[in-house]
Amino acid sequence: MNTTKTKAFGTAAADAPLQLMDIQRRDLTPDDVEIEILFCGVCHSDLHTARNDWGGTIYPAVPGHEIVGRVTQTGSNVIKFKAGDLAAIGCLVDSCRTCKNCAEDLEQYCIKGFTGTYNGNDKHLGGKTFGGYAEKIVVDQHFVLRVPSNLDLAATAPLLCAGITTWSPLRHWKVGKHSNVAVVGLGGLGHMAIKLAKGLGAKVTLFSRSPAKEQDALDLGADKVVISTDPMQMKKVSGEFDLIIDTVPYDHDLNIYIPTLSASGTLVLVGYLGKLDTPLNTSPMVIKRKAISGSLIGGIAETQEMLDFCGEHNITSDIEIIRMQDINEAYERLLKSDVRYRFVIDMASLKNGVS
Amino acid sequence: MNTTKTKAFGTAAADAPLQLMDIQRRDLTPDDVEIEILFCGVCHSDLHTARNDWGGTIYPAVPGHEIVGRVTQTGSNVIKFKAGDLAAIGCLVDSCRTCKNCAEDLEQYCIKGFTGTYNGNDKHLGGKTFGGYAEKIVVDQHFVLRVPSNLDLAATAPLLCAGITTWSPLRHWKVGKHSNVAVVGLGGLGHMAIKLAKGLGAKVTLFSRSPAKEQDALDLGADKVVISTDPMQMKKVSGEFDLIIDTVPYDHDLNIYIPTLSASGTLVLVGYLGKLDTPLNTSPMVIKRKAISGSLIGGIAETQEMLDFCGEHNITSDIEIIRMQDINEAYERLLKSDVRYRFVIDMASLKNGVS
Repeated sequence: MNTTKTKAFGTAAADAPLQLMDIQRRDLTPDDVEIEILFCGVCHSDLHTARNDWGGTIYPAVPGHEIVGRVTQTGSNVIKFKAGDLAAIGCLVDSCRTCKNCAEDLEQYCIKGFTGTYNGNDKHLGGKTFGGYAEKIVVDQHFVLRVPSNLDLAATAPLLCAGITTWSPLRHWKVGKHSNVAVVGLGGLGHMAIKLAKGLGAKVTLFSRSPAKEQDALDLGADKVVISTDPMQMKKVSGEFDLIIDTVPYDHDLNIYIPTLSASGTLVLVGYLGKLDTPLNTSPMVIKRKAISGSLIGGIAETQEMLDFCGEHNITSDIEIIRMQDINEAYERLLKSDVRYRFVIDMASLKNGVS
Repeated sequence: MNTTKTKAFGTAAADAPLQLMDIQRRDLTPDDVEIEILFCGVCHSDLHTARNDWGGTIYPAVPGHEIVGRVTQTGSNVIKFKAGDLAAIGCLVDSCRTCKNCAEDLEQYCIKGFTGTYNGNDKHLGGKTFGGYAEKIVVDQHFVLRVPSNLDLAATAPLLCAGITTWSPLRHWKVGKHSNVAVVGLGGLGHMAIKLAKGLGAKVTLFSRSPAKEQDALDLGADKVVISTDPMQMKKVSGEFDLIIDTVPYDHDLNIYIPTLSASGTLVLVGYLGKLDTPLNTSPMVIKRKAISGSLIGGIAETQEMLDFCGEHNITSDIEIIRMQDINEAYERLLKSDVRYRFVIDMASLKNGVS
């Protein structure tokens, strides 16, 4: 298969900084769309993959799965897009497209495993896929999203991961204007959860361990902040919430939140994959039919629905724009949660020849 | 309020055997139904309450919440029942009837707390309610169930707790003929879960640690038995089940079952209230949107639905009939799981003057 040399920013090893490199992008198949990348959000997963924190990273690795840009070329079968259109790519660029879950527009739960936008198994070129820290990307049209024209393009990028990761549980658990939703943690995911739940008309509460975040949460649209380390405040919201979206990315005690769920309520984990060391107490779960679930990003149709909704409600992410060459410093700040609430790379900085 | 002396079998202390005693039943209010108790199932909760295993038992205690019998008197407002009708009482005899959950026919999740059939707070007489190990019982008509006339009456009694406890999750998670259901544990709850899930048309698998239970499970209608201690067998059913009904009444490791759930599947705990000492691994839950939930008995409308369904499908419990005076020995056998699958007391033995 013919390929084109493409400028990118990636890393050659877990302990190496990210730097300028050349990668190959495939020449377009009839179903492909080529996109010039204008902005790319910086997700925690980018850093974890670059540093092989989860194992399984194959180097060189080029992160980035919150991609917005402009279509530059389309294959002969492509009717949804034409050159010049705005377009976006999220966390997945392929799946089997035939299993039960793919057939239900749940490509993120593809039984054979979806192809991640980076460090996924590239079905066309072999090896691993390269993400959005690059000049351009070539993706099958099924996995390319339309971008509402009224939104700020840079601030739209984080919708492709942080946005859909919180939108999918809001929709799966049928959140609407009569819902009472709580969000645990105020970072990239948490701030989108507040905005999207408010957009859907729900009453929204932030659980936070830090009173310092109260004003920020209210500014983002939260109706209330509950300090989760204060047993009196926690007791006051006993039985309140239909859905708790827990965005905390490390091990933490879920037992303090379960009593705040209403009967038949669900706490959904979107940030932490791993062991919960504090023994889970099933009693309040049995006594009032409460559930703990997980949720992973979202399917393609659901992602388009979220982007369209954000266009209608003028919802984007709160961001700090950086240059491509600032990425290593940005990763260090990310580790200290020193960002409100998402870094987005202006990819013109790559085009203009950073090194 | 006037009361009538009623013969019952109960206990005066956690370490005392159950024995004949007199209790008081209220005279009928306009909404009450009086029932002569013909059969009463023996639930693990009876034993735990008699022995104060959960704390909170007030003595004397009269257990029994799987009650079937015949209506002997009705209050002036009662139109659903008349003297001579078959009738049944399950685990609850009252609730606030006004909260959001009661309004949705979820009296078991009453926000103010439902009144248990025994050791509940008696709103009429003060003190605690007395259960079905008695000649008769007086209950508000809202909490009295109709019994299909075609069913064996003794074998119907366990439907009132073991039946509804497994029926409610089957219905809440919309099990039908395309569903793939697994059941963990083959006791009073487990054997009803198999029968009811099969009745609904689902494919049913029993998870068991003991190959000795395979034939029993198949005889009850299970399509398959998977030995949960065999990693090869567990791997073969990876991603299979839409719903797992976990009836195990003690702490156990849930992590071995989660991988056998399909995407969006739920493991529902109906038997164990307490701490899960083995750290729960959230990874498979996030990666395929799997949930762990609890579920508690069922509401009154749902219990009636279950009884009607059992009438239509001729489903009852597999039982061993005992006399009231055998109850202490039956409790010892219950502790050793030495019953297939439920003891039911023939209450004629109490009427006939056991001591």
